[in-house]
Amino acid sequence: MTADVIDSFRDTPDERLRAVLASLVDHLHGFVRDVRPTVAEWESAIRFLTATGQACTADRQEFILLSDVLGVSSLVETLNADASGDTTEATVLGPFHVTESPPRADGDSIDLVGRGEPCLVTGSVRAAGGAALPGASVDVWQCDDEGFYDVQRPDRQPPGNGRGLFAADEQGRFRFRTVVPSHYPIPTDGPVGELLRRTRRHPYRPAHIHFIAAAAGHRPVTTHAFVAGSPYLDSDAVFAVKPSLIRECALVDDPVRAAAAGLPNPFRHVEFDIVLRPESP
Amino acid sequence: MTADVIDSFRDTPDERLRAVLASLVDHLHGFVRDVRPTVAEWESAIRFLTATGQACTADRQEFILLSDVLGVSSLVETLNADASGDTTEATVLGPFHVTESPPRADGDSIDLVGRGEPCLVTGSVRAAGGAALPGASVDVWQCDDEGFYDVQRPDRQPPGNGRGLFAADEQGRFRFRTVVPSHYPIPTDGPVGELLRRTRRHPYRPAHIHFIAAAAGHRPVTTHAFVAGSPYLDSDAVFAVKPSLIRECALVDDPVRAAAAGLPNPFRHVEFDIVLRPESP
Repeated sequence: MTADVIDSFRDTPDERLRAVLASLVDHLHGFVRDVRPTVAEWESAIRFLTATGQACTADRQEFILLSDVLGVSSLVETLNADASGDTTEATVLGPFHVTESPPRADGDSIDLVGRGEPCLVTGSVRAAGGAALPGASVDVWQCDDEGFYDVQRPDRQPPGNGRGLFAADEQGRFRFRTVVPSHYPIPTDGPVGELLRRTRRHPYRPAHIHFIAAAAGHRPVTTHAFVAGSPYLDSDAVFAVKPSLIRECALVDDPVRAAAAGLPNPFRHVEFDIVLRPESP
Repeated sequence: MTADVIDSFRDTPDERLRAVLASLVDHLHGFVRDVRPTVAEWESAIRFLTATGQACTADRQEFILLSDVLGVSSLVETLNADASGDTTEATVLGPFHVTESPPRADGDSIDLVGRGEPCLVTGSVRAAGGAALPGASVDVWQCDDEGFYDVQRPDRQPPGNGRGLFAADEQGRFRFRTVVPSHYPIPTDGPVGELLRRTRRHPYRPAHIHFIAAAAGHRPVTTHAFVAGSPYLDSDAVFAVKPSLIRECALVDDPVRAAAAGLPNPFRHVEFDIVLRPESP
């Protein structure tokens, strides 16, 4: 049976697709043979997958969430990143990169609400050898101080709150103002939330800011800066924490620096330097 | 990573669910490690699964179709049926058991349209030892002479066309009138159709009539009677053909038998005897 199904894909013109499908059928049938689902269990699986697809909207990606809580997203990112020691580790994209981040100027604030603890984020984008990457794009997105992304709370946050697309300066540096993000539960009102409840798993992610950094000639990296000391750093619901990505969120009590940053005093400061790998090894 | 994800399900109260999820994570991560998808390929997979869920409606089940073309449905049925030599083999439910079959009396016609080659179906439901199972329920559904189910063509077929729920008589026998079903393509206007096109697989199923037979104290069987001589018996798009389920669709040219059956002369005749296993082995 399994061999017949794999053989049915023999004329697939795209070799990669053929290989992926052969592996998929092999592993999927292996899973079925292992667990020997009853027909009722198979029907439950069909219902679950259908509900997961139907929970997706323009602003919500429940299948990414499923991939996340099963550790698949993190595994894919890790296998792709294949980071050598000194480049920035990748982690999951997550389900909230659903809108384009608005382009913003160096130093701008991505906080359009004005609630929460003020925070300055500074950093740089460099090549593995240490050379600055001027003009590198830095796409950032984060939740607010209550743990919600703009698309989750259109009544309380304007579109683009917590999001920004920045270009690194001539020294490869970037800076923006924001508020300290909160740890938060992933959305639990859909099929993935039901899965977590039935398995007694908590839905929380530790506080983090998402980044995608990209520069010509280099592999883009999708990653997070995690806030040191946040709850759930040791049990992230989506298995995305890597120790190398945890950053202090230092309290700065210095009116001169606050004024220079355009922030009230005191404020928090996160430094996040990103190192990209060359495109071809 | 894989061990961490499996461990995250450790507090699942339902032992069976815990075991299924552990096996799922193991096989799913094994698949990911084998094929090492790029992030773009992972995104394609997410889009495909999302589109598959969103193609489902009250009358259409695209995830069952996906399960079918990957041979999973047939594998699940086969593992569950675990037929001993003399009981009727199971095969897939398929995606068109989406409405309840209307109850009909012995000998009724399930053809509400009057187009196609008239056909008499007779058979019996018996226990493995040979004993008749009076009152056994026989749920049947089939496509029309053009290869479409009622729910696919609401403009050309009334609801319930090609469907009927019968009760076997005191001798465990059932009979109904219909038309010879056509071979047909599974729906190709959704994501599964796109998969078949990209892999150069044809979408056809050989001609068949679906049955679910059930009787107290016995395991119900979900199966088909396949029409002998139909195209695609050797390459069913959903891997559901079993030689034991192929039946002659004999031409009967006999005005007396035709009149007795309530059919024009000549007509076709299919005999399909079903043998159920006892509930507990």
